[in-house]
Amino acid sequence: MAAWGERLAGVRGVLLDISGVLYDSGADGGVPIAGSVEAVARLKQSRLKVRFCTNESQKSRGDLVRLLQQFGFDISVDEVTAPVSAACQILRERGLRPHLLIHDGIRPEFDEIDTSNPNCVVIADAGESFSYQNLNKAFQVLMELENPVLISLGKGRYYKETSGLMLDVGAYMKALEYACGVEAEVVGKPSPEFFKSVLREMGVEAHQALMIGDDIVGDVGGAQRCGMRGLQVRTGKFRHRSCQRLHQSVPVIQDSTPERPVNENWNLA
Amino acid sequence: MAAWGERLAGVRGVLLDISGVLYDSGADGGVPIAGSVEAVARLKQSRLKVRFCTNESQKSRGDLVRLLQQFGFDISVDEVTAPVSAACQILRERGLRPHLLIHDGIRPEFDEIDTSNPNCVVIADAGESFSYQNLNKAFQVLMELENPVLISLGKGRYYKETSGLMLDVGAYMKALEYACGVEAEVVGKPSPEFFKSVLREMGVEAHQALMIGDDIVGDVGGAQRCGMRGLQVRTGKFRHRSCQRLHQSVPVIQDSTPERPVNENWNLA
Repeated sequence: MAAWGERLAGVRGVLLDISGVLYDSGADGGVPIAGSVEAVARLKQSRLKVRFCTNESQKSRGDLVRLLQQFGFDISVDEVTAPVSAACQILRERGLRPHLLIHDGIRPEFDEIDTSNPNCVVIADAGESFSYQNLNKAFQVLMELENPVLISLGKGRYYKETSGLMLDVGAYMKALEYACGVEAEVVGKPSPEFFKSVLREMGVEAHQALMIGDDIVGDVGGAQRCGMRGLQVRTGKFRHRSCQRLHQSVPVIQDSTPERPVNENWNLA
Repeated sequence: MAAWGERLAGVRGVLLDISGVLYDSGADGGVPIAGSVEAVARLKQSRLKVRFCTNESQKSRGDLVRLLQQFGFDISVDEVTAPVSAACQILRERGLRPHLLIHDGIRPEFDEIDTSNPNCVVIADAGESFSYQNLNKAFQVLMELENPVLISLGKGRYYKETSGLMLDVGAYMKALEYACGVEAEVVGKPSPEFFKSVLREMGVEAHQALMIGDDIVGDVGGAQRCGMRGLQVRTGKFRHRSCQRLHQSVPVIQDSTPERPVNENWNLA
């Protein structure tokens, strides 16, 4: 495996995932991951451009940033790219009126969107709102459409909360895809459009950027397919066993898992 | 398209799906499908062997048969093959202790099965019990296993109730498969083992058997892959639009949809 200096040569910008990298969420508000507050501080004092790139869709960017600031992170709202605003832009551009299967925490962000007489479904990490009744309603809306459009804010398999691993939106996206015979449009990681929009905001080229995350598919694989480098931390949802299983289907990213102890994983600056 | 006499030449046994063919289920108990009571009666008076082959996993066979008898159907419990007993046999043979994500209606059928310290997950059509919390628990059990085993009683996309289309177990099976990176073992239609066990019970060969159902994949496609003939009725979940979408991915079964009015669809005898 190449030395670290060599592997990071030419990096000008760093994209940081939030959940599982900066903190673990939880019903109690969550906890910061040891060493992360200091690592972000050092990165921001360095020559590197830094941006936070999250698939968070239970909290608004404002609520998320306020929480992270309370933990001591140096972070502001305009440094964060999240899928909700990209989704709203797509809905407006294409004249789509969504049926929303989302967490109440982000419902206000759709206040300006026409949701009457839906002609598409938007799903996000709805958490407890993923009841049978609510998923079935989204299914029924899709089945009534001549050309069903399903937009998913991310396609994560699961994430880690303080209480344990939790199913993410991707599992429910797959359920609807299968039941309706459609393919979802993913807004957020690992969509190439999403990564490219972050790179544009940072003003760096893909080959100059490093994505740091705990999701081997959404963070590392997605970044690599865009020509970026990917680094998987061993915090958050990282688990040796599942990682091995997924590596079998995503062999391209196998060598990007750093063999470093957790707290130093992405302490690059 | 071949004439009906020719298409049914040599048929000695008929397998009948129940939900969507004999009746539409519903919170109110459901309703028989017009003409079905009479068609079953005529079939049973004919020279054809008849067996009922269902993926029902919300009700026990006893409860289901009692309901159908109330509607006037000539049916008894030993004429019905359902996946629960096949699943219990597999659990016993392989020493599997299931975590059960099932409807309360079939829980008593697992009374004799050891469910302590689970080493697999069994899912069935759990209906309202498919809450986020329950699905997440099944996911967590699978993620803790070194060799996760997921057994699904059927893999139907959806079925029709009197109130409308309802998500079936297959959607939740796909959700768990995706989240855990595993492939489920399906017990029930369209599993070839399941169809073969029904043929053995009937004492007819595959080429002598006709499966009648409303599910283009689970009933018709599954039967055809076993060498049987398949006939899709236009009742139950049948819908022109979704059928066209699914036909694109299962072209082999396209010519088995009879161009007949609903009530005569399977009135063969």
